Amino acid sequence: MNIGIVGLGLIGGSLGLDLRSSGHHVVGVSRQGKTCDTAVALGAVDQASCDLTALASADVVFVCTPIAAIAPTVATLSAILSQDAVITDVGSVKSEIVAAATQCWPNFVGGHPMAGKSEAGIDVAEIQLFKGRPYVLTPLAQTPLTAIAVVRDLVQSLHANLYECSPEIHDRAVAWISHLPVMVSASLIQACMTESDPVVRTQSLQFASSGFRDTSRVGGGNPELGVMMAQYNRSALLHALKGYRNQLDQVTALVEQENWPGLEHLLSQTHTARTQFNGLS
Amino acid sequence: MNIGIVGLGLIGGSLGLDLRSSGHHVVGVSRQGKTCDTAVALGAVDQASCDLTALASADVVFVCTPIAAIAPTVATLSAILSQDAVITDVGSVKSEIVAAATQCWPNFVGGHPMAGKSEAGIDVAEIQLFKGRPYVLTPLAQTPLTAIAVVRDLVQSLHANLYECSPEIHDRAVAWISHLPVMVSASLIQACMTESDPVVRTQSLQFASSGFRDTSRVGGGNPELGVMMAQYNRSALLHALKGYRNQLDQVTALVEQENWPGLEHLLSQTHTARTQFNGLS
Repeated sequence: MNIGIVGLGLIGGSLGLDLRSSGHHVVGVSRQGKTCDTAVALGAVDQASCDLTALASADVVFVCTPIAAIAPTVATLSAILSQDAVITDVGSVKSEIVAAATQCWPNFVGGHPMAGKSEAGIDVAEIQLFKGRPYVLTPLAQTPLTAIAVVRDLVQSLHANLYECSPEIHDRAVAWISHLPVMVSASLIQACMTESDPVVRTQSLQFASSGFRDTSRVGGGNPELGVMMAQYNRSALLHALKGYRNQLDQVTALVEQENWPGLEHLLSQTHTARTQFNGLS
Repeated sequence: MNIGIVGLGLIGGSLGLDLRSSGHHVVGVSRQGKTCDTAVALGAVDQASCDLTALASADVVFVCTPIAAIAPTVATLSAILSQDAVITDVGSVKSEIVAAATQCWPNFVGGHPMAGKSEAGIDVAEIQLFKGRPYVLTPLAQTPLTAIAVVRDLVQSLHANLYECSPEIHDRAVAWISHLPVMVSASLIQACMTESDPVVRTQSLQFASSGFRDTSRVGGGNPELGVMMAQYNRSALLHALKGYRNQLDQVTALVEQENWPGLEHLLSQTHTARTQFNGLS
């Protein structure tokens, strides 16, 4: 199959590595010539170009640009691709994108591979990045079944765990487990920096170990991506932030009231609840 | 050197593995005979007993029990050890423990290796667990220099990063980077479980990936340990929780007001700030 990838970062590059290893011919497009060269050198694409017209003969195109560029890219591609071509994306919010993209390209299937890393860019692309990770497709009622089947097959070839739901359900679910954690984690980093005693602040920087590293990871990630998540999923994120603040206040009240049995009950609940989340240990 | 270890869990067991590999003779004490057998079988101790009197000839004793048992254990040991013996502990809070322990054993040196894992117990003990991790000693002004030197040498033999500060500074610092993250992370898990739409809740459980896994890890940890941290470091933890809530409210306000440049500025700050914490990437 001829596959196009627009945007050669961590996700686009990793998709290219996997799809090429499955025997597909992959053409990459990046705004930057240097990224194109790196992608070819790393074997993430067979060829690369700064020009979207290089994808004219693609059967499927993965749009892996930043969120704000997805719908405009689909609009541009609609004048380039053959009518049967399928477009999919990898954006971490879906409702707005799927609505806009479907309007200019009916064979559009929204997608979201849940496979982040703390680093970004083509240099950290890796083979089998998606293996065993959730990969959500968000077709609409009117999305052609043939288009869905094509994307579904490709996702399964990545050995990802395939899920399908509506864009709205997707956005509300990821608000809890992906977008809320970014804000929770960023607030933690900010809070630690507010300590007014310089000795305590310095020691806390030095003592930070695995617990802090893990809890602060997503809050120290790509700022642009964090803003996009908030911007494109604002109401679901605000709902999650509100629910979160209630829980934080409950935990704080238990500590204030020295209600240790209550705190132990709560921490036992979270200990058990965490095991219900997919694949966590 | 004859070294005693009271409490053969992850930390006690891992200490034993390292200290034995440095040529020390290690005697372990656990309340449970089965744990004693496992510790001997794993090579974490040379011999093990359920009775503290087995440590009568120890030069140094590491108390690796749960926090609440540290001071009582030191009191019991004070009738067993020779006068020159040094006692140290590995508790994650220090002020109360160091005060109580020093009172019954002047040669007491508070310690805190920052080397947690999500699992607990002797079965997950590992060699070189402390390598490259912070290990804080919290001597008092009156702690004998000879006792400090003995513990310092042993900690350095673990290839840990040695720090020294007062118990009070330690407790205020770890409130930010160790105890606050537990409450922040537990609140995240609880909040996700409050979603009232069962479809959204189910999907969020399924979509949870590396971001949620990392941010929720310490909140899904040992409930008993979480309660002890809060109980023994209550005022510093409440100070940190208050500071955290302020930051969370600021982030929420930025999203509410659609102040995207403001949110990007904040997330850029946290992106940069995180690199200032010890050894994080």
